[in-house]
Amino acid sequence: MRVPVGISNRHIHLSRNDLDALFGEGYELNILKDLSQPGQYASKEVVTIVGPKGKIENVRILGPVRRETQVEISRTDSFALGVKPPVRDSGLLVDTPGVKIIGPKGEVELEKGVILAARHIHFHTSDAKEFGVKDQDRVRVQVGGERGVIFENVLARVSENYALEFHVDTDEANAAGLKNGDEVEVLYYEN
Amino acid sequence: MRVPVGISNRHIHLSRNDLDALFGEGYELNILKDLSQPGQYASKEVVTIVGPKGKIENVRILGPVRRETQVEISRTDSFALGVKPPVRDSGLLVDTPGVKIIGPKGEVELEKGVILAARHIHFHTSDAKEFGVKDQDRVRVQVGGERGVIFENVLARVSENYALEFHVDTDEANAAGLKNGDEVEVLYYEN
Repeated sequence: MRVPVGISNRHIHLSRNDLDALFGEGYELNILKDLSQPGQYASKEVVTIVGPKGKIENVRILGPVRRETQVEISRTDSFALGVKPPVRDSGLLVDTPGVKIIGPKGEVELEKGVILAARHIHFHTSDAKEFGVKDQDRVRVQVGGERGVIFENVLARVSENYALEFHVDTDEANAAGLKNGDEVEVLYYEN
Repeated sequence: MRVPVGISNRHIHLSRNDLDALFGEGYELNILKDLSQPGQYASKEVVTIVGPKGKIENVRILGPVRRETQVEISRTDSFALGVKPPVRDSGLLVDTPGVKIIGPKGEVELEKGVILAARHIHFHTSDAKEFGVKDQDRVRVQVGGERGVIFENVLARVSENYALEFHVDTDEANAAGLKNGDEVEVLYYEN
């Protein structure tokens, strides 16, 4: 079973409240580019994130707004910022570090929300049926080539709102020599 | 068979001529820290490397001087600099890109020498005998934990001058959640 790769550069999802604080009351994000997951988009807007050791400018906001603000960075970025985020599935923000976010109209001091996103595969329900995986299953992903690797413990996420894609961050993509749209092979753990 | 991990941050090896050009005729590097491979050291001296798209400051020089100047960066770094180095074993510099190097006393415009270092294991001759590997063999390396991976096609390098160590760059270490001194398991390909 082959799946295309989508590489997540560092980005941020904002709550309605934090978007207001950073860009002004009632601000609406402007779509730069639709993402492969239906309804999700990269916005034209960017922010600066600041940690104890350094800052990173031009961090892209992904829309639409979410219930909680979440900052997804690579481990490389975490050293530059001086924060120690855990590897987490999206939305699981208990016991994660914060950073300061700077927008054009204000700043937000996050108490939590910074994660290293756990690599995962989005399966549309029909893909999942065809390939015999259930939501929250763990699979392995094999990458060929001179930097060939097998990624273990890859989370399967299944929804009618998903398009088939293997999501990794830039460290993982670079370690394996991957670029967007490359195809990788899904392997199964024996039961 | 378990092997400790050594993570290579970006660094540069200089030829005698290039050291002269950057730091002045007859300059001798000052040892900051001995490395685990016998006779190799991190020097106190650093340089700036400049590509078409950006520059990276404070790139550490590793000594002693070598026959040819070689710049080892991560793929993450390569995007920041705007160069496209291949994955290469150390010393194989044909058809690699160059960068500009800036030192305190001068600059050098390299015509070649920038690589993404191919991950490899240093085996002392006695380790190699014990574990049944030969120089230039390929093995696999298994990393456990939540970012567990298997690295394929890992080059074995055997010498009486080597200390047992698995060398990866920062992208590979970050993708696998590794830190210096962590232990990984070497697996063998079936013949």
